[in-house]
Parts: sequence; structure tokens; C-alpha cells
Amino acid sequence: MHTARHSPASDTLGSLGETEVLARIFPRLPHADAALLGLGDDAAVLSAPDGRYVVTTDTMVHGPDFRLAWSTPVELGWKAAATNLSDVAAMGARATALVVAIVAPADTRVATLEGIADGLREACAELAPGCGVVGGDLSVSDTLVIAVTAFGDLEGRDPVRRSGARAGDLVAVSGALGLAARGIELLFADAVDEHGHPDADRVAAVRHAHGAELAAQLTPRPPLGDGVLAALAGATAMLDVSDGLALDARRLALASGVVLDLDAVAIGVAGLGLEGEHGEVTGEQVLRGGEDHALLATFPAGAELPGGFRPIGHVRAVGASGPEVRLDGVPYETRGGWDPYEDWNGRRG
Amino acid sequence: MHTARHSPASDTLGSLGETEVLARIFPRLPHADAALLGLGDDAAVLSAPDGRYVVTTDTMVHGPDFRLAWSTPVELGWKAAATNLSDVAAMGARATALVVAIVAPADTRVATLEGIADGLREACAELAPGCGVVGGDLSVSDTLVIAVTAFGDLEGRDPVRRSGARAGDLVAVSGALGLAARGIELLFADAVDEHGHPDADRVAAVRHAHGAELAAQLTPRPPLGDGVLAALAGATAMLDVSDGLALDARRLALASGVVLDLDAVAIGVAGLGLEGEHGEVTGEQVLRGGEDHALLATFPAGAELPGGFRPIGHVRAVGASGPEVRLDGVPYETRGGWDPYEDWNGRRG
Repeated sequence: MHTARHSPASDTLGSLGETEVLARIFPRLPHADAALLGLGDDAAVLSAPDGRYVVTTDTMVHGPDFRLAWSTPVELGWKAAATNLSDVAAMGARATALVVAIVAPADTRVATLEGIADGLREACAELAPGCGVVGGDLSVSDTLVIAVTAFGDLEGRDPVRRSGARAGDLVAVSGALGLAARGIELLFADAVDEHGHPDADRVAAVRHAHGAELAAQLTPRPPLGDGVLAALAGATAMLDVSDGLALDARRLALASGVVLDLDAVAIGVAGLGLEGEHGEVTGEQVLRGGEDHALLATFPAGAELPGGFRPIGHVRAVGASGPEVRLDGVPYETRGGWDPYEDWNGRRG
Repeated sequence: MHTARHSPASDTLGSLGETEVLARIFPRLPHADAALLGLGDDAAVLSAPDGRYVVTTDTMVHGPDFRLAWSTPVELGWKAAATNLSDVAAMGARATALVVAIVAPADTRVATLEGIADGLREACAELAPGCGVVGGDLSVSDTLVIAVTAFGDLEGRDPVRRSGARAGDLVAVSGALGLAARGIELLFADAVDEHGHPDADRVAAVRHAHGAELAAQLTPRPPLGDGVLAALAGATAMLDVSDGLALDARRLALASGVVLDLDAVAIGVAGLGLEGEHGEVTGEQVLRGGEDHALLATFPAGAELPGGFRPIGHVRAVGASGPEVRLDGVPYETRGGWDPYEDWNGRRG
């Protein structure tokens, strides 16, 4: 059954057609333990043992979100899974299943979709064992789009929302900050051609010199298990840090009606300038860089922080200026974050 | 709270940015009764009273799946919801919620997304009261893409799969056949410019002359309630007819390991030529036309057909040629169906 050999390079979506493409992809997709009925009917049926399920969706588009010159198809599948799984974990849930819609040009090689399927499988196996793909859709367009919807099981626990932080709580984070932003900066600095366009021939050298930064950017490994551990440890609020620590801290502060006072030494930005040396993560990247897929959470004072969580500040009652983020007690300007409509330069790639 | 006024025509996604666009859209989206936690956190939490949930996903892409010259944004939202809701109904489930990912060019008017939201809301209100939007994602690309994932509640019933048809069963259908295909044919015949491109200025006349056909194509009304009624009546197999009756009947025949023998008079194709007169649905459209979103189901012999189901044939044991579709006892060639990779002509639109 599962003869997942790679398709010849000459096979494209247009030359094979949808039915045959699906037959090549299905054997590569990971099985979901929660699937009572999986691929192949009008819809899947999933189990929800505690009578509830968690749902989130996140889309990756060629151009603003990834470049085929820089990412392998396996890496694209991995990242599409990982970023969605991280949102499930940020509710304190265990990820159970994905559905995946892919829109691709007709001249896309079938091997590209097989690679995406392999990446989905590898990410589930490493990050969320038992989680699998239970459905999907294929369509055609000029631009490759990967739209993933992910599901999770709260296992009887309350969801950890953004709105539960209270004055006196500890602020903690699990996962690397700024590394993914440093990765994309390195790619735009050193893996582009003379016109500034992503260049597949130059990416190998950047990967070799900056493996950790590129791994954080291209194949993020969010600390999913820490999401469940945080819920078990009584986290009062939590979210996935995807738009930079400062902006996501502001979201948590606004939702909870509190001040998040972050400690520059604890975050690791006290010794970093806003413009770092080549090869080092800057304070700007730690605070404003996107795509960390770290978990930001608040815990009751005195709680023992679980898993990889480390303390980075305290929750304070709001002052006259309302909910905000402070750095060492000083209000921190949280504008920024990446906006796909305002910040994507289609000509740059 | 719900001040859902229309945005000025000059507002685009790029001029407003993601946060403001979401603030304009959220008040227009339908509420889901099943939402324990809805929009605004990393993920939604939905109730699954019987410990299971149904999941399906279907994507619409500008070009192969719709044209902005022919469909209003409200109609796009309606169709994106209706086609997914139909897949939920085809399992015998009641639709409960949607998540919606939209990828759009930065120069898209915010009013276009507001219209899509209005269409999602109107479709849920009319077709699946209580069903709502619980999450989504916005991103940017040159081509408008609407990716919907839909959820349903089996309410304690077994899902109705494609594989349960048995020799002796009745074959029945609920919903119109061929009308949607006739609608798209009329648009390509009469609502295009001299180069064959979709022409917004010519669509009004076609709508006026062929209201039923265009409604079936642009704002399908799948008989969702009949999905639940079929399950309650003991349907042995069911699917959503989206790729033409003959091809979807073949899928059911293959999955069940049976022959579906269809009755030309009952289907209504006995008096129709393969090439009908202008303005009438042809036998070709009834049997091979796509996007009907009718329900094809099989019932035990003697069952009283529920709701809008009408008998169109019988299930027979396989013969030497294996599972197949027959028309009045004669094997019917089921090749056809629309393949996005093989059949979409990007230059035609």
C-alpha cells in the first residue's frame, strides 16, 4: 500500500491530473490516531473524547511567506504543519489532526507536492506524534499556497486564553526569540542575486554558516509539549509568539487588561544593540522579529515554571496609560510586526 | 458592537492593513452556536456533544473556480460556504462551523472582503442556521483564494459513507442536476467579451434571462437538511454530487463494490439530446455537468425516500466488468469530470 516512491521529475500536476496526484500523495501523509474516518470520503470524522475540539488555521503563500528558491518542499510541509501546531499548543491542547488545502500552478512538479507531504509527515512525527492529515483539497493557481487547518484535544482541561493574566503573575517564555528573524535577514542579505531576488544557488553557503538561524526560519520546532505543561501548571494566559515578542505581549496585555513588564536581562537583550554585528541576533530581532513560534505565558506568582519556560518579567496592574508592554519599567513602543498587506514587497520576492 | 457598515470604495487591504481589515470583517461574520470560544485567540474551541466531529475542506480560486466579473463578493462568500456545507451534509451530519482563510491582492477593496463575509453569513443563516465562522486567516497574493474548512455534528448517528451501497438498494438523488453546468455554459457563451474573457458588463442580461441556471451556478442551495434525513432514513451510502452525476455515481460504485444502474427517464435525460437547444439543460449536463451539489444516496429496497429524494435507479451486484455505472442497463462511460490541472485554461479566465 504505502509505496511512497518519488515521482519522476518530468511529472507535473498538469500532466498527471488531480486523481493521479492524490494517489501519489495519500500514501505519504501521516495517519491521525484521532481519525474515526480519514481520507477519501466527502469529509473526515474525528474523535473528541472530552466533547470539545480546538481549531486554528494558518496559510503560507509563495512570495510573502516563503520562497521556493530558499525552502525545499519538505521544509515547506514542515513549516506549514509546525506553525499551525504551535497555535494549538498555545491553547494548552494536544494537536491531533490537520487538513491541508494546496493551490499550485499546473506546471508544479508532483515531486514538489510529495515533498510537502513528506514534510507534513516528518513534522507530525517529531513534534506531535499521533497527529496526522485527515483531509484536504487541491486546486490550481499561478501562486503556490498551502492552507492548513489544525485540530487539538484539550483532554478535559480549560483552554488557556490570552485574557487571563492578572497583576502579580510571572511572565515566561519557552522557545528561541529572534533566531527566525535573524534567519530571514541573513537570507535576504546573502542568498539573493544582484537584483535582490531569492537565489537558490546562494542559499547553501548561508545554511552552512548559519545553521541554527536558518533552521529556526525554515523548519521551526515550536515547544509544543510546553503548551500542555503550561496548562497543567496553571498558566493564566498564553499565546503563540508569531509577530515578535513585543507585539504579542501587547496582545496579551490588551486581552487581559494588564501591563506586561519585561526584564531586558532576562530576555537577553540588555547587552544587544538594536543593530547587531553580522551573525548575531539583535535586540530588535528578539523584541520585534516574527515567526519565533515560541510560547508566551503568564503563571501565578510562585508557580514552578514547567518544561522549557524561563521567567522574563512580571504582570503589573494597569496605570494611567492602560494596558501596555514595558521594558525594565519603561513603556515600550510595540508598533511593528509584519503586515502582509503593508509590508510585502512583491518585486523583492 | 455589530456596526457592519460598508467601507468606502477607496479603502483597500493595503491601505488599511490586516488588523483594521479584521476589525471591519469580524462584526459581519455569523456566530456559531457550537463555539465555546470563537474568534480572537490562537484557536477556537468547539463543542462536540457526541464526542466526534466531521471535517471537510474546499477551496475556491479566482480563475478556475470563479470570476470576479461574474460573481459579486456576497455570492462568492455564499458559494464558498454552501459547497463546504454540502460535503458535511453528505456525511449525514449537521453543519456547525466554518474557518475561512482568504488570500487576496493588496489592492483588493475592503468592501470585497466585507461582501464575502456577508455571503458567508447569509448562506449560514439560510442553509444551516446556527452554523458560524469561528476562525480564519488573511494573507496576500496576486490571486484571490477562499479556503474554507467546515465542521459538522453527527448527533450520535453513524456517518453515511460512500462504501455502504448493497445490491438491491434504491438509488436516489436530492437537488437539481445539470442546472449549474448550464449556468456556467451560459456565462461563457453570453457574458464574455470579444476575446472570450468574462465581462462584467454582459452578465446582467444573462442573469435576467436565465435566473435559475445562474443561481444554481453562483449561489447554490444544496439540500443540506436532506443529508440528515437520509441518515435517519437508513441511507446505506451518500455523497455530494460535485463532479457530475455519472462520475460521482462511479465513485460510489467503486467504493461500495457495486453497479449503479440509473434510469434515464427518472433522471430526466431520456428526452434530452447530448446537445440541447439554447436555454435548456442537456443530457450531457445532467450526467456530466459539475457543481450540482446535489446529494446522491442509496437506500434499502422499500425504504420511504425522505425529504426531496427521488428514485433514479437501482444498485446491482457487480458483473464481469466490475463496479460501474449503467444507464438503462448499458455501461455508461464515466470519464469526464472537471480536473483543475488538466482542464483550466488560464488565458480564458
